[in-house]
Amino acid sequence: VPKIVDHDQRRKELADAVLTLVARVGVNGVTVRSVAEEAGWSTGVLTHYYGSRAGLLLAALRRAAAVTRRDYQQGPLTELLEGVLPLDERRLALNRIFLFFYAEAATDEEIRREIAGYLANWRADVEAAVRHAQAHGALDAARDPREVAALLVALADAVSMHAIFDPAVMEQLRSRSPVPGWLETFGERSAVVG
Amino acid sequence: VPKIVDHDQRRKELADAVLTLVARVGVNGVTVRSVAEEAGWSTGVLTHYYGSRAGLLLAALRRAAAVTRRDYQQGPLTELLEGVLPLDERRLALNRIFLFFYAEAATDEEIRREIAGYLANWRADVEAAVRHAQAHGALDAARDPREVAALLVALADAVSMHAIFDPAVMEQLRSRSPVPGWLETFGERSAVVG
Repeated sequence: VPKIVDHDQRRKELADAVLTLVARVGVNGVTVRSVAEEAGWSTGVLTHYYGSRAGLLLAALRRAAAVTRRDYQQGPLTELLEGVLPLDERRLALNRIFLFFYAEAATDEEIRREIAGYLANWRADVEAAVRHAQAHGALDAARDPREVAALLVALADAVSMHAIFDPAVMEQLRSRSPVPGWLETFGERSAVVG
Repeated sequence: VPKIVDHDQRRKELADAVLTLVARVGVNGVTVRSVAEEAGWSTGVLTHYYGSRAGLLLAALRRAAAVTRRDYQQGPLTELLEGVLPLDERRLALNRIFLFFYAEAATDEEIRREIAGYLANWRADVEAAVRHAQAHGALDAARDPREVAALLVALADAVSMHAIFDPAVMEQLRSRSPVPGWLETFGERSAVVG
């Protein structure tokens, strides 16, 4: 053990190891032992940082939310929406971890508040991109950007989930991004958005 | 115990008792004992019919899917979509039970297939209503009815979930149905749809 430990860095590494496992084997495959093997740390270290399997999964959720927001917050609208679709294994893992906590949110008030907060952030980010696209003539400016953002976020969220449940939906999703069609529906005026 | 028992009827009653409990206290409040009290039967009878808490919840999911489809399959498009939104306590229970099994579907292949089947039925029902609305000039006939149906189902599903997570979304949903706005987005041509 080095004398100076970067605890934040180690926490991130452990959370990333959980996400890697979720991508490869699903939420069911996450145990303190399997994460320890994936991360190359002892189960004692994991327990020190996150306490239990539940703590590891929550860390992965928070990491997924932070990484997604960091990567896509500043991007154009299309990127912002495609960033959450399960178009590759990494984004599939993000979707799986969110779906797991959606169900937890139905019965756990603290998790519910946290999920509601992520969704509110997500709507705000998309709304900003919608306003930008409207200002640049790429989306119909007559529509309420708040409502358009809520609909786009709902579409991205539901289509992602349905793809997890149905291989046919997943195949269709991965063969062609649905986002351009959504934007057309909301009055896209040109092929270049954002 | 009467000599002739209508087993199907009793199974339905028990599943309805689970849904009543889910509406009142959520999925967490469902136990073999609480359902027995709600239904007015012994825990022995429940165990005979459904084996365990997991069996009771699965029965409630199937009952919810059947009741929803029976009530709304034949209706006009607006009714078909509003039928799944958590606009009252009964429909809130249906949403809660589906959300619970969405998470199960992520880790259980049998449940996943079942949920995928419900979603496919749901899309087919909505597609039929979309075709009907297009044929009667209420929706833009130039749009692919299959795609419009998939988008409408995704919107209904996601907005329902987000309402479960976020009281502000729920309040907005219950103050004004979003369905007319969705249909307008997809080229509704008149106020009367279906």
